[in-house]
Amino acid sequence: MSISSATQDRYPYQNEPTWSKTEKAIARTAFDAALGRELQEVIGKTKHLANAIRQSADLWDLEHYLTQRRKEIDRKYDYRYSQLTHVFGRLLHEGRVSEEELRGLREDKLKPIRSFAELLPADAVA
Amino acid sequence: MSISSATQDRYPYQNEPTWSKTEKAIARTAFDAALGRELQEVIGKTKHLANAIRQSADLWDLEHYLTQRRKEIDRKYDYRYSQLTHVFGRLLHEGRVSEEELRGLREDKLKPIRSFAELLPADAVA
Repeated sequence: MSISSATQDRYPYQNEPTWSKTEKAIARTAFDAALGRELQEVIGKTKHLANAIRQSADLWDLEHYLTQRRKEIDRKYDYRYSQLTHVFGRLLHEGRVSEEELRGLREDKLKPIRSFAELLPADAVA
Repeated sequence: MSISSATQDRYPYQNEPTWSKTEKAIARTAFDAALGRELQEVIGKTKHLANAIRQSADLWDLEHYLTQRRKEIDRKYDYRYSQLTHVFGRLLHEGRVSEEELRGLREDKLKPIRSFAELLPADAVA
């Protein structure tokens, strides 16, 4: 291992933007709002699926749906500042967060968020 | 390993009763009826829990409930003739199968079924 890569390993986030207090507040609000909306979607779908259960296969389909959604939501909503531009990029791509909600973030955050949103393939909506 | 225990390992079911064609039909009917009733219970409870969901914790509680019930039902409803007296013993103990439904089985089945039902502790109802 070269000195250079060893340094990178030790300081992996050295080039990442820092988040001001105001930006942290904006990010938290947008993040919580998107998560809340997504959970409401899952709650609505779960009630719908449950009411439509006729046989045991439908039960285990519902269990599978819940497990998949829980894992996906756990993975997607990662509130670490080192991850937030990727997280918001995905949420913007999926239409789960609006540019309006991100207003007040500086360009060093908005630019990578928009870039990541545009880079994602159309079928990455989940 | 002694010759005696080696023999036991090779012929674990040598002392088990054989099931006549009539007994197999009775067992299948009783088994399927109990399983069907238990699944209907889970379906009813699931609809109830789903309708009562207010927040995300309720969602994951429902997922956990479904996973637990699926595993328990998979474990409990084991239709192998080598296991059936234990299976019916448990179902009888839990009140999920009646003596009436087992009528027609011979005493070499009913006796171990009743014994197992009586041996189970009161809190083994699941």
